[in-house]
Amino acid sequence: MTGIIKERLFTPGPTPLLMEAQLRALTMTLHHRTDAFRTLMRETLDHLRYYFNTRNDVIVFASSGTGAMEGAVSNLLSPGDRVLIGTAGKFGERWVQLAKAYGIESVVVEAPYGHTVPISEMKKHLDASGPFRAVFIQATESSTGVRHDVKALGEMVKALPECCLVVDAITGLGTTDLHPDEWGIDILIGGSQKATMIPPGLAFASVSEKAWKTIGNSKLPRYYFDYAKERKNLAKGESSYTPATSLVVSLHAALSYIKQLGRENLVANAALLAEATREAASALGLTQFAVSSPANAVTAINAPPGIESTKVVKEMRVRFGAILTDGQGSMKGQIFRLAHLGYYDFLDLLAVLGGLEIALLKVGHKVELGSGVRAAQNVYLRQPA
Amino acid sequence: MTGIIKERLFTPGPTPLLMEAQLRALTMTLHHRTDAFRTLMRETLDHLRYYFNTRNDVIVFASSGTGAMEGAVSNLLSPGDRVLIGTAGKFGERWVQLAKAYGIESVVVEAPYGHTVPISEMKKHLDASGPFRAVFIQATESSTGVRHDVKALGEMVKALPECCLVVDAITGLGTTDLHPDEWGIDILIGGSQKATMIPPGLAFASVSEKAWKTIGNSKLPRYYFDYAKERKNLAKGESSYTPATSLVVSLHAALSYIKQLGRENLVANAALLAEATREAASALGLTQFAVSSPANAVTAINAPPGIESTKVVKEMRVRFGAILTDGQGSMKGQIFRLAHLGYYDFLDLLAVLGGLEIALLKVGHKVELGSGVRAAQNVYLRQPA
Repeated sequence: MTGIIKERLFTPGPTPLLMEAQLRALTMTLHHRTDAFRTLMRETLDHLRYYFNTRNDVIVFASSGTGAMEGAVSNLLSPGDRVLIGTAGKFGERWVQLAKAYGIESVVVEAPYGHTVPISEMKKHLDASGPFRAVFIQATESSTGVRHDVKALGEMVKALPECCLVVDAITGLGTTDLHPDEWGIDILIGGSQKATMIPPGLAFASVSEKAWKTIGNSKLPRYYFDYAKERKNLAKGESSYTPATSLVVSLHAALSYIKQLGRENLVANAALLAEATREAASALGLTQFAVSSPANAVTAINAPPGIESTKVVKEMRVRFGAILTDGQGSMKGQIFRLAHLGYYDFLDLLAVLGGLEIALLKVGHKVELGSGVRAAQNVYLRQPA
Repeated sequence: MTGIIKERLFTPGPTPLLMEAQLRALTMTLHHRTDAFRTLMRETLDHLRYYFNTRNDVIVFASSGTGAMEGAVSNLLSPGDRVLIGTAGKFGERWVQLAKAYGIESVVVEAPYGHTVPISEMKKHLDASGPFRAVFIQATESSTGVRHDVKALGEMVKALPECCLVVDAITGLGTTDLHPDEWGIDILIGGSQKATMIPPGLAFASVSEKAWKTIGNSKLPRYYFDYAKERKNLAKGESSYTPATSLVVSLHAALSYIKQLGRENLVANAALLAEATREAASALGLTQFAVSSPANAVTAINAPPGIESTKVVKEMRVRFGAILTDGQGSMKGQIFRLAHLGYYDFLDLLAVLGGLEIALLKVGHKVELGSGVRAAQNVYLRQPA
């Protein structure tokens, strides 16, 4: 504990940074009312379309992802509209709070923590309790580590001409295969501090033609998060208010890297890390918190029997400088979370798993040293050549 | 092989960089004929004294370590002087070449690769074949991974008033306990791209009073690597020629980090990584190239039976972006080397060992997955709390 200890993030955001992207922000001219910056912004929007896997326009805000989530509510809806929300954790609950903050009546399908929102239950409501102006859900719920079948939900909402599907994919983008155009996702939301490997401060939203039509008629108040105003300015490479220039530069560089790597390979990277983590956890006698459909973005692992997860998290931080996250809210002490997001490769995973084995021993959970690492190595070796 | 692959150095120099030290060079005013830079240079020399564990003056050159080695020869010696050289590998041979280049007659005690220079043999020569003006050796020979007993050698040379001991500790500093003042090391040589965690480009030499006296009377030609001239200028925070300013700034920052960490803890860090690597290699059915006295700086591992080490090195690079080094010269294909130098912590080691297990399997060496990692973890757990 007296030698070199590097700090390493294994959290579901912020995530390990792509240093080249950070450095690019130091060397670029950063005044935003210049042609150079306008060109950069337009290229970044093109990159975002690639990253989102969409032909729709993507808009960018200087805010956390929650800003774009609020914008989805305030831009799509009008007083008197009703919405359907599927929630399976802390981030799902944010949709409920947002609807409430704007005085919008919501019907909530609530899955217990660790479970996924039952899409059949959502369908029942869509069929029988409508009309709904919009449906809100998470692609991946990072407080519990589950993934939702947004494709199936999209099929249902596509059939309703007056209803839009809004998907928070803040941790889903870059970790899950998403086809917003084909699946009928009308608003898809992302944030900079996740699989894009840059710091927090930017929110993204792709918006379908169907959603733009709804936005044109909606009446809720909005100003900063005005989607249509932002779209109009971004078309010229401008933003309505001062853009977070250094983050845009870093984003441009990071998305160039991702384009070179390939979106599918970025998702495959997260899938490999996640599967290897799940197998390692099993080998170490631990169980997953996600009852089904575990997300590639983050793995939530139940605390070892009789031991608070907080102790594991602390041991990892103090001993190895490895930052894992505890459960949020009522899940604190019950689970710890190991993310698979950002500039993060297989050797990073072997490192954290090797450290975790020691941490588990130290908090009193019996493990065979090396067995978690071996399980992860076997997942690596199972990959097609 | 299609996901994220980070490049990581596990080489005996250059080594993993301390990013804070790199960034410091971006934000400092760098003109060298300013008071700010002079103060920085003087503080850096103080830090170097701490790092070298000496009360002697340390001088700095803008050059690779070899520059300071050449300086030790050209500053200490005069035509007609004879020297004794102990060599155990490529870097020992450099002393022989340097003596030859300056027309100095040398008596060479040559250990076979993988062995250490027998100090008893050196003593025999010191007793019977003298007088020698100087004795040259490596603290650690990084081409083969062995450590020399420079303390014992120092005891012998200390007794000879006309003979100086010169030790190349380029990879020895920060990885081996060294007491130059107590042990009678007259010139101790270091380089920036090793345990100091910054890029190549600076050479260091600490010089004893005994050596300064010899230098005062020596007659070999020198200009750039003039120790006395550099000492005089450095006392004022100046350098004789343009200093490598960005490297000096980074060095100042890196040595501040090392001072905070503690020199002993830096050495202990390398010792832990080296011991864990040796045990891991054994667990993986591999043998060490060093027959005895393995260095903490770097571990040289024999190629798996019937397999070229070049293949292991390539597999690690292509598959994991992990840069190991092959054997040098006639050792190429016979050994691979895993260093323990620079900004490098225990989780880095677990990562490279986990990757190495996969690489070994892929080149056809049978290993039990996880067993090397486990051996390393057990070394970690054996440490006093």
